[in-house]
Amino acid sequence: MKAVGIIAEYNPFHNGHKYQIEQAKKTTGADIVIIVMSGNWVQRGQPAIIDKWQRAEIALNNGADIVLELPVQSAVQPADIFAQKAVEILANFKCEWLAFGSEHPELDFEGLAKKDLSNSKFVNNDYKQSYAGLIREAIDGVTGQRISDPNDVLALNYAIANNSMEHHMQLVPILRKGSNHHDKELNHDIKMASASSIRDAIETNRIDETIKFLPTAYDKSVFNKICSWADFWPLLKYKVTTSSIHELENIYQMNEGLEYRFKKFIYQSNTFDEFIYLIKSKRYTYSRLRRLCVYTLLNWKKDDDLGSQYARILAFNKVGNGYLNHIKKDINLPIITKIDKHLSENELKFDVNAGKIYESINNRKQDVGKHPIIY
Amino acid sequence: MKAVGIIAEYNPFHNGHKYQIEQAKKTTGADIVIIVMSGNWVQRGQPAIIDKWQRAEIALNNGADIVLELPVQSAVQPADIFAQKAVEILANFKCEWLAFGSEHPELDFEGLAKKDLSNSKFVNNDYKQSYAGLIREAIDGVTGQRISDPNDVLALNYAIANNSMEHHMQLVPILRKGSNHHDKELNHDIKMASASSIRDAIETNRIDETIKFLPTAYDKSVFNKICSWADFWPLLKYKVTTSSIHELENIYQMNEGLEYRFKKFIYQSNTFDEFIYLIKSKRYTYSRLRRLCVYTLLNWKKDDDLGSQYARILAFNKVGNGYLNHIKKDINLPIITKIDKHLSENELKFDVNAGKIYESINNRKQDVGKHPIIY
Repeated sequence: MKAVGIIAEYNPFHNGHKYQIEQAKKTTGADIVIIVMSGNWVQRGQPAIIDKWQRAEIALNNGADIVLELPVQSAVQPADIFAQKAVEILANFKCEWLAFGSEHPELDFEGLAKKDLSNSKFVNNDYKQSYAGLIREAIDGVTGQRISDPNDVLALNYAIANNSMEHHMQLVPILRKGSNHHDKELNHDIKMASASSIRDAIETNRIDETIKFLPTAYDKSVFNKICSWADFWPLLKYKVTTSSIHELENIYQMNEGLEYRFKKFIYQSNTFDEFIYLIKSKRYTYSRLRRLCVYTLLNWKKDDDLGSQYARILAFNKVGNGYLNHIKKDINLPIITKIDKHLSENELKFDVNAGKIYESINNRKQDVGKHPIIY
Repeated sequence: MKAVGIIAEYNPFHNGHKYQIEQAKKTTGADIVIIVMSGNWVQRGQPAIIDKWQRAEIALNNGADIVLELPVQSAVQPADIFAQKAVEILANFKCEWLAFGSEHPELDFEGLAKKDLSNSKFVNNDYKQSYAGLIREAIDGVTGQRISDPNDVLALNYAIANNSMEHHMQLVPILRKGSNHHDKELNHDIKMASASSIRDAIETNRIDETIKFLPTAYDKSVFNKICSWADFWPLLKYKVTTSSIHELENIYQMNEGLEYRFKKFIYQSNTFDEFIYLIKSKRYTYSRLRRLCVYTLLNWKKDDDLGSQYARILAFNKVGNGYLNHIKKDINLPIITKIDKHLSENELKFDVNAGKIYESINNRKQDVGKHPIIY
């Protein structure tokens, strides 16, 4: 049995994701599809619109055989760390292939990933500058190749991460169909739309408009209760208000006086969007600042050990189960199916705390006492 | 012009308070009534049901000439510190008399206060034990006099504090009329009821029932938006969930492993009342634990300097203004009428932060940019 791995957020799952899974299987001939998915907080520094269990189940219903959770401390990170941690899990699960969406699947990602970027600012950056800009600059400078579309940038990061693994997976770029990632409008001509345009429609109560972009086997009632930053804004405002400058300064990635900007603008902001707009400067992308808001909300510290790596199983079917039984003795990561008191206070404390805060809004148990979804 | 001082919380102001002001003036012949009042958080560890400006204005409409705010770091304290700080302000404002309610006004509070309690556990206690129990025991042991009713206990604390002042005020105990302080039921036979029974009625939407217990010149629309612990519960739950044991241990008055009880019970509690019930043990009173919840919510630390003392003027009328002009050169406390950036980040930071958290629920500006109410 051979597996293809996909790194995803499914925020929310839509026809484009279903198509990607189908293409990945078809192109490779894989028997198994393994997904590594962000949990309740996603890479761009936002709460997931619906929770990880709901998203894992939808994936299972639409072609995935195993859904693993990317730990929150690996998911809410710049693209290179996000990619490195996710690729590591798929490599550990012995995937033959790594499939990913790309605006330009004809690019030689593996070749580009082998270029020596060690003298570029990209490799030496400490995330004080916009990451997307840095990688674009570095690749452009070293290879003359301009990589700028968001899925291409991510793909390159996957390729770089893959090169650092002991056993390399074979890269399978899949042409993204339908809207561009950043499109704000739903494209009604084809049945594919970006996750962000679907989120936008759901958040503004236009759920009916989104139905054609979602797989048919999809319980739309999941969208009766959605989460957005607006829900967590009172907690973030409380946190920043009651924290001293010194406490804010100790928050993970709170650099270069951003703690003063947080303090200065929190009181006059009535919404999260207003706050993020006020603290924005040329130096930081919105994603970087939203991630910093997640770190602040979840109280991650500069001296926290965020490197803990493990494989949390959210969902699997019979095929997936067979595969897991076959390979589990060879996996060099702790495999987590149930969270006990010790795990929740140690290795998995970031996930469990992040889940509790998410749970305080969506009112559905996230971690403690939860078992994988088994089909 | 001679002034009588009263220490109050007015949570909310009712006929008993109006009667107390009238009696204080009548008994003493004072020209001026000065109130020192808790702000948005009260001595027993609760948010005030309506804010300090609303309560100050009602007091001004019902006999008070000057309303001063007891700083939050002095108000949310055991009875002895509360009394000491409040008496200090009234003594500084040159009050001739200190009037207070008492279940037994015939008691010789001044005499009892002079007894040497220095060898009793009461004086040496570090608030690890129930305060009310300790003082009862100490007085009983030294004087043979049993003081147990809540206003008598408070009165004794005022008397002790008064004795420590350079110039002693004359004590004026006034018989409490109507319900006992702790009565949960409204007493419809007379027009006086306890603040806690009135709060209960308001919180359970029986505002109409309370009207007869409130002075006629009272805008009942203030009760359209009330605050209770239920409103702040999501913030407290968030705070305890995201704080490490070490961070909780650093909270002011978090002693003897209470941080573990906080952590243990926060997740399984659905309401503030459930939480406080679960962390309760024989050793601590509900008031002590609720105060600890206020300290936690407001993020007060063991090494915070909570001793800052000043006189914040919330409201005054013409008579009050004349008196203020007459005595202000002799007051040995900073007098605060407006809060600028420096004050809000230094001397008054506890008040300002407490106000911001309160404001996040009641949506009315509390401190920054506010001026005293002038009649």
